[in-house]
Amino acid sequence: MQIDVCYTPDLIHQFDVTDKTVVVIDILRATSCMVAGLGSGVKSITPVATVEECEALGEAGYIMAGERGGKKLEQFQLGNSPFEYMQPEFKGTKIATTTTNGTRALELAKEAPEVIVGAFLNLKAVVEHLSKQSRDILLLCAGWKGKYNLEDSLFAGAVIDGLKKQASFDTDASIAAFYLYESMCKDIYYYISRSNHASRLSKFGILKDIEYCSKVDEFDIVPVLQGKELVVK
Amino acid sequence: MQIDVCYTPDLIHQFDVTDKTVVVIDILRATSCMVAGLGSGVKSITPVATVEECEALGEAGYIMAGERGGKKLEQFQLGNSPFEYMQPEFKGTKIATTTTNGTRALELAKEAPEVIVGAFLNLKAVVEHLSKQSRDILLLCAGWKGKYNLEDSLFAGAVIDGLKKQASFDTDASIAAFYLYESMCKDIYYYISRSNHASRLSKFGILKDIEYCSKVDEFDIVPVLQGKELVVK
Repeated sequence: MQIDVCYTPDLIHQFDVTDKTVVVIDILRATSCMVAGLGSGVKSITPVATVEECEALGEAGYIMAGERGGKKLEQFQLGNSPFEYMQPEFKGTKIATTTTNGTRALELAKEAPEVIVGAFLNLKAVVEHLSKQSRDILLLCAGWKGKYNLEDSLFAGAVIDGLKKQASFDTDASIAAFYLYESMCKDIYYYISRSNHASRLSKFGILKDIEYCSKVDEFDIVPVLQGKELVVK
Repeated sequence: MQIDVCYTPDLIHQFDVTDKTVVVIDILRATSCMVAGLGSGVKSITPVATVEECEALGEAGYIMAGERGGKKLEQFQLGNSPFEYMQPEFKGTKIATTTTNGTRALELAKEAPEVIVGAFLNLKAVVEHLSKQSRDILLLCAGWKGKYNLEDSLFAGAVIDGLKKQASFDTDASIAAFYLYESMCKDIYYYISRSNHASRLSKFGILKDIEYCSKVDEFDIVPVLQGKELVVK
């Protein structure tokens, strides 16, 4: 079992996902929200590319969620904060969501035989899930507008660290992610809060989101893409 | 003065080079060869994209150098080993070279007001040169066929480490390169020899090249692109 890392969706053309388990990673904040929501009883989350698709699902009874440039869309019930997704009123509901980077990464991963969603919030569950399957693994970082980002790369390194006894990681991208995590694992929140994305988000007064998205193993669930929706298996 | 890192030519569209000093990095082995050659008395090195262009310059009296897939081209006098470039017979000559990755990165950088070439072999000279100018800096890793690579990223981190008091590095890519270097700086050769590129090259029996390309500060020169040729200013 081999692990590789795609640091941004702009590099996905270098990888063949058709025989791999892909882990989509958008720590700030799409995949953290998905884990927090599904871990708190949301029935399913359907990522869509456009606001219009989200609204169409809204008319079909879905809760509408999403952001553009880090800000909640006015006509939606939810933005992109994990705390919103954890509200008891959304237990058992279906959510449709559109986000800047996370949705794009999920879209690019969909040719893979299995697509799961990872965040620090479900790190251990992701590692356990991966260790029980045998396909090669691609850790797909959502990045920010196609750019390399720190928090997603750091999480890729955390998964590699968790799997290092069962799987081999010998590509340069995976070696670098592993050492990045080794450098930063003692204070994940500190390093994530220094990241570019955190700086941008902190302007919107959501430092508590960043702090929460840095927490490890809050949820023992793995969201899996089934058709167009993410569910807990 | 800001420093940023472009990890592979496949991400260059995310950067504007027109107001920056660009450092082109291809540790294994194009930029190491350029530093070794120009540091040993070669008059100029002209990187070209194709074998045909190289041959045309050969007819005009240039020494022809280059590789495809890590192997010397039969009709050329030089391959892509720094030891070849340092031979006394090439002192004062003009060399035309074509390599898999390094040439592409140089081509992409040419809109920049200044393009220089960096390798561990001239690390200190590069850092000093950069510290005496005031433009923002882009460290452009040549990668391998567009993929992220360890040795170029590690060198980017080394330059950031050298400039950390004079310049700010607050993009995620530059923060990650810095920490990668901090993790690996105690044994550069060890980590470079573990890289994918080194593994590929070691099949050609050129471990001594890899060892030499890991050496720091062998030459106190900075190759600068002037028109189409690299020269020592």
